[in-house]
Amino acid sequence: MNYRLTLQYDGTEFSGWQVQEGARTVQGELTRALSLIEGDGVVVHGAGRTDAGVHAEAQVASVPLRREFEPDRLRAAVNGNVGRDLRVTAVEVAPDDFHARYSSKGKAYRYRVFNEQFQSPFWSRYALHEARPVDVRAMQDVAALFVGEHDWTAFSSAQADVKSRVRNVTSLEVSERHSTRGRGRLIEVTVGAEGFLRYMARSIAGALLAVGRGETDAETIRRAIEKGERANVIATAPAHGLTLVEVRY
Amino acid sequence: MNYRLTLQYDGTEFSGWQVQEGARTVQGELTRALSLIEGDGVVVHGAGRTDAGVHAEAQVASVPLRREFEPDRLRAAVNGNVGRDLRVTAVEVAPDDFHARYSSKGKAYRYRVFNEQFQSPFWSRYALHEARPVDVRAMQDVAALFVGEHDWTAFSSAQADVKSRVRNVTSLEVSERHSTRGRGRLIEVTVGAEGFLRYMARSIAGALLAVGRGETDAETIRRAIEKGERANVIATAPAHGLTLVEVRY
Repeated sequence: MNYRLTLQYDGTEFSGWQVQEGARTVQGELTRALSLIEGDGVVVHGAGRTDAGVHAEAQVASVPLRREFEPDRLRAAVNGNVGRDLRVTAVEVAPDDFHARYSSKGKAYRYRVFNEQFQSPFWSRYALHEARPVDVRAMQDVAALFVGEHDWTAFSSAQADVKSRVRNVTSLEVSERHSTRGRGRLIEVTVGAEGFLRYMARSIAGALLAVGRGETDAETIRRAIEKGERANVIATAPAHGLTLVEVRY
Repeated sequence: MNYRLTLQYDGTEFSGWQVQEGARTVQGELTRALSLIEGDGVVVHGAGRTDAGVHAEAQVASVPLRREFEPDRLRAAVNGNVGRDLRVTAVEVAPDDFHARYSSKGKAYRYRVFNEQFQSPFWSRYALHEARPVDVRAMQDVAALFVGEHDWTAFSSAQADVKSRVRNVTSLEVSERHSTRGRGRLIEVTVGAEGFLRYMARSIAGALLAVGRGETDAETIRRAIEKGERANVIATAPAHGLTLVEVRY
């Protein structure tokens, strides 16, 4: 039977999604918990291979198991054997050919910035702190430049071992709201794409923040997107501000 | 000069507000940080002496200092010397007779319950997890019983050394919403009063939850409030679900 798991995790104390020898990872923790009930040979696939420190509100994983489980019992069994910073929120039986990563039609990541003189304790694990004023309107004005099919070389890790760096960004929204809990201004950059390169979501957030801080302009951003010129002002924003918020199938 | 500080803290790793030998407390941490810039004799007063594990979104403290400080610099100096789970969000110069606790006209606490089969990692430090269905309508129906001046003996710590257990509850609101971040149902009980006894907010939340779970009824609650009969079903709800959300002056 093939199972589809929906997951939340606080990425702070994980070395990312992917199994690594000697490190605590989300894939590793799930594999260990599932092996307790299934035995050896468990292989868990994730839709997004989030980096160390990146969070997930709705990651999706698939795992074929030899034994048959009632979905709610499988969920409870996994949750009973992983840290409480990782939760399976739902389990469904999936078609045999369902694969969390290859079946995905798109994903969305949200980058959060807490924009006050102080960093709220309630956002410090989940949002970048920016004390300087950020011009959200300027960020919104350049947002449309990112949408479309482009070569994202200037917005990805140079080490990424991929055949093509062309990806289709389907949506980019910059919004702000007052966080009741943090008692301050929270800026959210939500980027949707059919696929992401490594560091792509964080580099897009970093570029938009550079615009918001007045450190770069629309023309520099346009050249980076259209001609692959990586400007020095476009820094990869820190991992802890990023959350995987949606996987589409 | 007398200063008024507004504070946020994640209470998880504090042994409450009040200074205790050998324990990390909010008052202790603030006193230590202020002593670094002011020297000995710093006395910090807090509006609400929150218990271990209780959070604050807008606690207020007052502290008279011999030296004069520009408010924003004082805020930065304190924030640079306390853990990041504690933040001074604002500093103002206050009248000489301002005292965070005695000048307060009222406070509000919010108790949060995450009501899903799973506990979200994003709420696990800040909301009680209740997997069973909770009847919010039933809680709302009894909420009005709590409003008014009553002897809260049945809803407070027996050890509390106070002259009177009469307190005036000015508002009690039970609401529910979908938490985008937690992807689930969040129930919030917000209680406002001119003053609180120890465990009073958590006992009121516990009583309302007992109603929501169908473990007790309006009549039992009414007797507990009016006649001081503490029913067994009225348990003090765990500290981590509680947050001080407002202090009025």
